[in-house]
Amino acid sequence: MTAVVPNQPVIALAIGDPAGVGPELAAMLLADPDVRAAASLVVFGDRRVLARGAADSAVTFDIDVRGPGEDIVPGAKPVLIDLGHLDPATIVRGVAAAGGGRFALANFSACLKLAAAGKAQAVCFTPFNKAAMRLAHPSYDDEVGYTQEVLGIKCVAKEFNVLDGLWNARVTSHVPLSAVAGLITTPDVLDNIRLTNASLLEAGLAVPRIGVAALNPHAGDGGNFGHEEETIIAPAVAQARQEGIEVQGPFPSDTVFVRATRGAFDAVLTMYHDQGQIAMKLIGFDRGVTLLGGFPFPICTPAHGSAYDIAGKGIANPGASKAAVLLAAKMAGRQRHS
Amino acid sequence: MTAVVPNQPVIALAIGDPAGVGPELAAMLLADPDVRAAASLVVFGDRRVLARGAADSAVTFDIDVRGPGEDIVPGAKPVLIDLGHLDPATIVRGVAAAGGGRFALANFSACLKLAAAGKAQAVCFTPFNKAAMRLAHPSYDDEVGYTQEVLGIKCVAKEFNVLDGLWNARVTSHVPLSAVAGLITTPDVLDNIRLTNASLLEAGLAVPRIGVAALNPHAGDGGNFGHEEETIIAPAVAQARQEGIEVQGPFPSDTVFVRATRGAFDAVLTMYHDQGQIAMKLIGFDRGVTLLGGFPFPICTPAHGSAYDIAGKGIANPGASKAAVLLAAKMAGRQRHS
Repeated sequence: MTAVVPNQPVIALAIGDPAGVGPELAAMLLADPDVRAAASLVVFGDRRVLARGAADSAVTFDIDVRGPGEDIVPGAKPVLIDLGHLDPATIVRGVAAAGGGRFALANFSACLKLAAAGKAQAVCFTPFNKAAMRLAHPSYDDEVGYTQEVLGIKCVAKEFNVLDGLWNARVTSHVPLSAVAGLITTPDVLDNIRLTNASLLEAGLAVPRIGVAALNPHAGDGGNFGHEEETIIAPAVAQARQEGIEVQGPFPSDTVFVRATRGAFDAVLTMYHDQGQIAMKLIGFDRGVTLLGGFPFPICTPAHGSAYDIAGKGIANPGASKAAVLLAAKMAGRQRHS
Repeated sequence: MTAVVPNQPVIALAIGDPAGVGPELAAMLLADPDVRAAASLVVFGDRRVLARGAADSAVTFDIDVRGPGEDIVPGAKPVLIDLGHLDPATIVRGVAAAGGGRFALANFSACLKLAAAGKAQAVCFTPFNKAAMRLAHPSYDDEVGYTQEVLGIKCVAKEFNVLDGLWNARVTSHVPLSAVAGLITTPDVLDNIRLTNASLLEAGLAVPRIGVAALNPHAGDGGNFGHEEETIIAPAVAQARQEGIEVQGPFPSDTVFVRATRGAFDAVLTMYHDQGQIAMKLIGFDRGVTLLGGFPFPICTPAHGSAYDIAGKGIANPGASKAAVLLAAKMAGRQRHS
């Protein structure tokens, strides 16, 4: 048994979809000195799958291997919990399969349970493949819903996109555009501002500066192209400001990101999916991190997908995965010591 | 009377809002050798206002000055039609005023009439100020509507944004987001694809490549978040392809611009205002050109506004105005020789 390194948070890391770059990214994280200095990793997966990931990415690392029932005390050396549930010979690279989905889900739920039991302060995972997840678990919608299901809690949880210090959250997400306007309410906008503020505080910002996007073109142009800015969004911003949150807006959505990239805001709260995603992907969000905020512990993953086209080729870029673990470690460390 | 330069199109240039950077930009265009080599300019304005613009921007140029009734044959030397309608002493810089709006509207409508009479092949203008336009002409909505009013024609006309060779047009524009989905029809999408293709051909592209944005997040995710992709947009794309147009889509709107910036498309057709504007402004559209397409002649203007905050300081950047004139000259030249 290795000793816990003082002040180092424990991060539970799930190996993602095995037909994609998940195994090799996990191996690269385990070999990365910055990652090892920032967190004690407890990896959930299969030792054979991880070994193949290490071979694919040509990295080596030392790790303690434990069985699923064994006592785990993560320390200077990371720990692999070998669930022994996937023979690499059964994996067809680049193909979404139920077996791969089951593998990723088992790893993820084990991570969530470890954190829920207080034995890890954050959860990370290398990319999942949504089609494989659905083959394995037909009711699988997204990571927020699955986490609520595993943890047995309903909380205001949100996906944040984080890139180079710029955060983006959205009030509505995977709904038809025709439904967006009807779903925007003052309480929802206010909850989202509060959650954004809380998550940024957790990430270490002293006074997070939040810019709120308008719903309509030109922020409604004084009512000429819609009234939601005055009737719904502005009252939420006013209430949040009364609560001491440094939030401004609503601003026309075609300028709020330009201002944010020039440093005016730490986070932009958008009203719908593409409003934020168009901007973040152009800025380079595939290099960024997706954070699930609002749960009792942070959950981070690289923003990019399982990259079936380059799986096993040893050319996957670990930058976003590394950023995900470092953000989780920062947030976990603050939670732990606060 | 100066001789017409062979193969040089005549461009009618309206001096824009006099409280902003319009006069100094017009002066800089007149002093620019590339502009003078590309087009014979006929400028509509007031000689005193233009003189102040030249002084503000510290440029000099030679120009033939004519009265509004006089015969104009533009040649190697540009021509100013001095409407004598604005004393610079009455202009308050940085303030939208009815007098400034009237000045800009008089210049613009004179340009449109010159082109409609076949005496110019394109129209350009330095920035207008919408508030001033409305003070002068309360029914003023935008340049497309005003041009239709002056020309007495109703045609499928559209505003295109052009930046570094990337074009953006949109099916709907200044409407509330809640109204967008209901306004997207197959005939409208098809008309917009055709007009985009025609305008790009006019600008000299041999086979314009057009990418069409989806309406819903993830292009509807196979119907999970909306059906307009399958039922409305895809049939328009299919019809346009049958007509020989090189158009593809619908693509998720958060990736279509990323692909376009990497060279996959010459133009992106978006379904609503902010979908395109978020992307184009992040890419740097304020350096770009707004083109009104679908009229009998091209109408171009810089994408940026009247910049009241820097008016008269001699620091306005003429780059976008120059790009506007050069695009107009290119399109006019092709129309003229086809």
